[in-house]
Order: sequence, then structure tokens, then C-alpha cells
Amino acid sequence: MKKIAVLGCGTVGSGVVEVFYKNRASIERKAGCELDIKYIYVRRPHPEIAYQDKLCFNFDTIANDPEINIVVEVMGGVDPAYRFVKTCLENGKSVATANKELIAKNGAELLSIAKQHHVNILFEASVGGGIPIIRPLHQCLGANEIDDIQGILNGTTNFILTKMIREGMSFSDALALAQQLGYAEADPTSDVEGIDACRKICILASLAYGRHVYPEYVHCEGITKLTAEDVEYAKDWGGVIKLIAKASRDPQTQKISMLVAPMFVPFESQLSSVDDVFNGILVDGDATGEVLFYGKGAGKLPTASAVMSDVIDCAKAADTIDTLYWEDSDNNFVEDWRTQPMQSYLRLQLQYRQQTALINELFDTPVLLARKSQPETEIAFITPPLTPLQLDELLSRLSDEGISVLGSVFLA
Amino acid sequence: MKKIAVLGCGTVGSGVVEVFYKNRASIERKAGCELDIKYIYVRRPHPEIAYQDKLCFNFDTIANDPEINIVVEVMGGVDPAYRFVKTCLENGKSVATANKELIAKNGAELLSIAKQHHVNILFEASVGGGIPIIRPLHQCLGANEIDDIQGILNGTTNFILTKMIREGMSFSDALALAQQLGYAEADPTSDVEGIDACRKICILASLAYGRHVYPEYVHCEGITKLTAEDVEYAKDWGGVIKLIAKASRDPQTQKISMLVAPMFVPFESQLSSVDDVFNGILVDGDATGEVLFYGKGAGKLPTASAVMSDVIDCAKAADTIDTLYWEDSDNNFVEDWRTQPMQSYLRLQLQYRQQTALINELFDTPVLLARKSQPETEIAFITPPLTPLQLDELLSRLSDEGISVLGSVFLA
Repeated sequence: MKKIAVLGCGTVGSGVVEVFYKNRASIERKAGCELDIKYIYVRRPHPEIAYQDKLCFNFDTIANDPEINIVVEVMGGVDPAYRFVKTCLENGKSVATANKELIAKNGAELLSIAKQHHVNILFEASVGGGIPIIRPLHQCLGANEIDDIQGILNGTTNFILTKMIREGMSFSDALALAQQLGYAEADPTSDVEGIDACRKICILASLAYGRHVYPEYVHCEGITKLTAEDVEYAKDWGGVIKLIAKASRDPQTQKISMLVAPMFVPFESQLSSVDDVFNGILVDGDATGEVLFYGKGAGKLPTASAVMSDVIDCAKAADTIDTLYWEDSDNNFVEDWRTQPMQSYLRLQLQYRQQTALINELFDTPVLLARKSQPETEIAFITPPLTPLQLDELLSRLSDEGISVLGSVFLA
Repeated sequence: MKKIAVLGCGTVGSGVVEVFYKNRASIERKAGCELDIKYIYVRRPHPEIAYQDKLCFNFDTIANDPEINIVVEVMGGVDPAYRFVKTCLENGKSVATANKELIAKNGAELLSIAKQHHVNILFEASVGGGIPIIRPLHQCLGANEIDDIQGILNGTTNFILTKMIREGMSFSDALALAQQLGYAEADPTSDVEGIDACRKICILASLAYGRHVYPEYVHCEGITKLTAEDVEYAKDWGGVIKLIAKASRDPQTQKISMLVAPMFVPFESQLSSVDDVFNGILVDGDATGEVLFYGKGAGKLPTASAVMSDVIDCAKAADTIDTLYWEDSDNNFVEDWRTQPMQSYLRLQLQYRQQTALINELFDTPVLLARKSQPETEIAFITPPLTPLQLDELLSRLSDEGISVLGSVFLA
């Protein structure tokens, strides 16, 4: 019999307890041993929780109980989660966590501590909720070199963009609806500014490329500046706007390029039809070609089931799982995103219609995009490949002429 | 150093050798040991193969070489693959195979032999080519009860249907094109009659439900009778025709329902946009909800990379992997498909326009579908849920009145 402690009993935590007791027989068969939840750690009384006898208010009880083999961390946030997880690993307990913030910030250190103590820290639920992605990436695609990962990794922003695309809603109306439906939090910053997606792509890149990619080294743009007009131009171009988190590796230099930003995605891409709160992750391996993983990226039961699959693996593993590992890094292997050429969509406000001549000169006579009720002095087009440094320079020249930027989105 | 023998050096076999030597360093890192290919078994000389010193024409040399730890079986077919694989397992060698026919026919027996000898038989490549599906199904989704699996599992038929849908091609023209492009074999029977898809869904169902589902107990229809008109009616209904392989379990009786047949798939389903030679597998778990796995279902390198991921697992595993297992069965747990109610699309040739009254009576005034240049005496509609037995009875009543069936497709 192996004993489990669950740290935190919010949405995901209560889901973990529910899934465990519902599918216990099959989980034990897969784990190859008997399992039970001994403690549910909470900070204050929760009279609504069914398993009152398991509630525990003192973390040290769990940390020092030699009967506890596996700890499920579903508190979220870095403090006290980091401290608790570290202590558990040091005390020889394996950890299954859904905490993307923790892994994106302290993954390399925690993986190393786990290795020293011959236990595991697993985090399938930290990216893509119930979609299996961490394990397939390090295991099933083990014989591949991963050239490129592109993901829609945040369900909240994807819901907002879907509403803007399908129903022509404004960003703020779509956000209000998402909040009303419980898809967005009262403070939506970490979703709409791309921070959540950024943490997740950092975890995937660290795993795929073997060195820790820290979120603070990744350029990250949110979706708050997008308008219904940008959505219309995307359609005219032949696609949709999605918040894309990207990681790729240059086969020559081994340097990694990372970017989180709204992007034009062509209709031909499978990512273009990943709608509503769903997530999709497109992994391009040198042997497999493109493989898409798609499903619910969040939610109580999907996330809980991913955590439970990690619990099963923790129960089975006799030692640290070698392939799920990456080194710490100083991140000088991540390319400066401002030196990477990319195409962009631009929407500009001209002073005079005649200024199109200047646009043609600066942007190599780009193909124009059109929308309904387009004002005479609004112009939209796709740029040639330009580095952000080059683009900034051109935009400042336009600004000198009184031409302002109404919208700007990269091409995926 | 662990030594590998590759049985067969056709498309997939040569891909395995290529992927191994290309990504050897990273494969060895993931396997946690040094690896090399010692033999490539072929029946006759292959002067075009780069590794002539590794060629071996005598299987017994491999079977009796104690240095060989892992055998890759990529010959296809059941004879002599079954005999070879069995011998290897009995001699304590793990096997990685891409052979869906072998696993669908002899999987339970081979899994049991592997267990007795503390080795593994792994078959990630047998379903979905390079798409990770076998491992996620038994591992990542381990905490789920699988309610339902629906897959587009055959790239050849999906290519043909895509051409019929997008370009209005006839079945025979689309098949001819597929043959010309190398997507279909000279004898396309096992693809177009659904036999290949049936083997694959049997493997997935055996794994998900823990008991061997033999292909001969599964009702299987191909796509040869579909016409461009059926495709037009599907569009009017709001979807496309796909060759769907299904497996589901009744939570009460634990009985399994299986079916392989062309089906109407609504545009809202992610499977409707799985086009060309791609495969898509939608797995519905009680906790995760729907998860889609999508990618290239065949091809040299995708399949080879799946085989190599199995080789890595064979190299790492100290004993038989418990969760990848199912029992043999007498298949009386598979429901008789003729007693399962389903909705269908029907296209009928009336004798007289007035016979619509009879249709309305028999089919509960169904909603009619329409197409361009529809003849006066052609009628198409969606039936209420009927078992195939009930449907047959109604169709024979129509036949008595001189009404014949022009097309018939189930709804997914």
C-alpha cells in the first residue's frame, strides 16, 4: 500500500480526490499496487469536503510521515508550493504537480533534487490540462529531434479570440463574457497578457531541448490590443488570429527561438480550428512530421486525470525517470527575438491617401488586405520578412510622416 | 551495449535503420545505454542497402544470438512474422513491431508469452504510424475509464474520401489517383474494404478494455459503394463522410460495441477536418473528455520513429511493462452490432413521386436532404435511430414496393 498526500483542495485538488476514488480499482491495477489518500492538506477548515478525517492543517505532519510516498501538489503559485515540494523531494517523496508557474520557474532545480533523492517530480497536468503532452514529448517522440513546437496553450484567450472571430465581439465584451462563464478570473492579466502560455511553452521547450528556458527570457505579447478589424483582415488574408506560443531550434547553432504573441494562422493549419477553451499543440519532429495533440486544456476533471496519471507513474517508478530531465541554463542559448526575421500584418492610419507610395517603397509593394467599411486612409498589408529591430525602424520613419500603427500581428 | 536485430528491410525497416543512425546519440541518451544494430534480416540480397555487413539471411542466427536484446519486426503479414516474434520472445528478446495484422490476430498470446519471459512486445507503430497513441492510451490516460474511441485510422481511404469531398471525384477516379501517388497498393482491398482500419481499432479496443477483440467479430464496411451524390447530401446535412472505426463500452453491461464503416461526421467534430492521408483518433475518457491525436498515419520516417520509441522503451524496461497488457477472450463481450440503434442517411430511388407518403409513414416523417440536379424520384433523408435489423426489415418492405436503395451511410 502506497500512501498519497494531496496539497490543496481547490478545483483541481477536489477533482484529484474524486477521480481517485471513482476509478480506484483501475488506477491500482495500472499502478501495480494498492493506493490510498492519507492526507488532504488545507490551510483552513473546509466543511464541504467529503473526507473530513483526511484533512490536515500542518504541512510538517505530511513532510515527516514516512508512510507518505507520493505528494500531489495542486495549490498553485510559487509560495509555499516551492518550499513544500522541495521538502517532500528531499524527504524521499515523489511529487505530482499541476503547477506550471513552479515548474517554469524552478523546474531544473526540482528535477535535480528529485534525481539526488531517487524520486520523481512529474507535471503532466502543467501543460495542456488533460491532454497527454509531457509524456509523449519525452517518450513517444524519443527517437525524434524536435524541430518546432507551436501551441495554443491558454483556453481563456482562445475562448475570447473565438468569440471575436465568430461573432465579431470586441476584446472587452469577449473578456466580460469569459469572466461571466467562469473561464477568466477577476484579474485576467496572466491569461490575456500571455504569461500563462509563456510558462507552458517554457516547460515544453526545456523538455524538448534539455536546458531550462526561463520565462523572463521569452518575449511575450498578450491579446489586449487586438480589435475586431484585425480579425476581419486576418480572414481576408486567409486565416484567424490565435495566441501562439512557439519554440524552435536552429539545427546548426542549436540556439532556441521562443515567442509568445498573437499570430495570423492560416486556415490550412490544424491550429486554426482549435476553438473555444480547447488547447492544441503541434509538435514537429524530424521523423514524425507534424503531430497534433488536442483537447481540453483546463478544467477540474481533465487536469485531475493528468495528475492521477503521474501518481500512477510515481507509484510504479523504482527510481528517477531519466528521460524526464533538463539541465539548468544561463539562457544565452535562447536567440534574441528582435534579430529573427518574421512576416507581420500591419494596419496603418495614413494622413493622406497618397502616402501609399511611401508604404510601397518601404515594404516592397506589399499585397494589401481589405475589409468591409474600410476608411480611405486605413491601409492593411503583410510585410516581407523583417526582424523586429528592422520593423521598429520602419515604423518610426512612418511615425515621422504622421502615419500611426492601428494594429500589428506576426504571421505564425 | 544492447544489440538490435531488424527483421525486414522494406520501407519501414530502412527507415528504422536511417532514424537510428541519424539520431543515435539522442536515442542512446534516452535509452540510458549504448545501442547498435547488429543484424538486418532479409530473405534475399539487397545490394542497395548501405549496411551490407549487417545483412543476415538466416533467422536462426538472430534467434540464437544471446547478444541480441531487442528485435524490430517490420516484415508485415502474419507468416513468418508470428513464428519469428514468438521465438524471439521465448528466447528472452524484447520485440518492437509495426505489424498491426499480427497484433490484431495474436496480440493476447504474444503479450502473455512476453510476460512469461519477462520481456516486452511493444507496437506503438501498429496504429496511427508516427502518432503517439498506444502509449498515451495505456499510460497518460491511465486514470480514465475510456468511454469511446473514434478514429480515422486509414490514410489511403481518407485521401480518397478527401478527393471525393473537395473535388467531387468519383470513388474509382480517386482510387486511381491514390494508386498513382503511391498512397494505395495495386490491390487496395485491405484499405478500401476497411480491413486495415478494423485491425487498428481492435488493437485500441483490446488495450482500452483489457480483453482481446478479434477483427472477425467486428462488422466492417468499406467505402467502395460511396458516390459523389452521397458526399453532396452529407454536405447538405452539415458534415462529411469519413471511414470511422469505433469502439465504445456500455458502463452498465461492460459490453463493447465495435463498428467500422463510412459515416456522416458533423462539421463540428474535430474528425471532420482530418483530411488527406492524415489520421485522427478521438479518445473520450470519463475524466479528460475528448482528446484528439492527429498526424501522419503512415510513411517511412513517422512509422520508423514510433518503432524507435519502442526500442528505447525495450532497452529501458527491466521487466514486462504491466499496463500494456490484455487477456485473451471469447469475444462474447462484443455486442451484436445488428442490435445497436443508430441513425442512418438513406438515398432511395422511388418508382413514383407519390411513394414519399410511404417513406413518411415508415421513417416517422424524416427531414429530407437536397442536392443540385436531384431527380424527381430520388429521395434522401436521415432515419430515426434504428437497429440494422429494423432497418433491413424496413428496406425489404420498400423493396417490395419497387423502391431501391441508392446509398446508405451511418451517422457517427
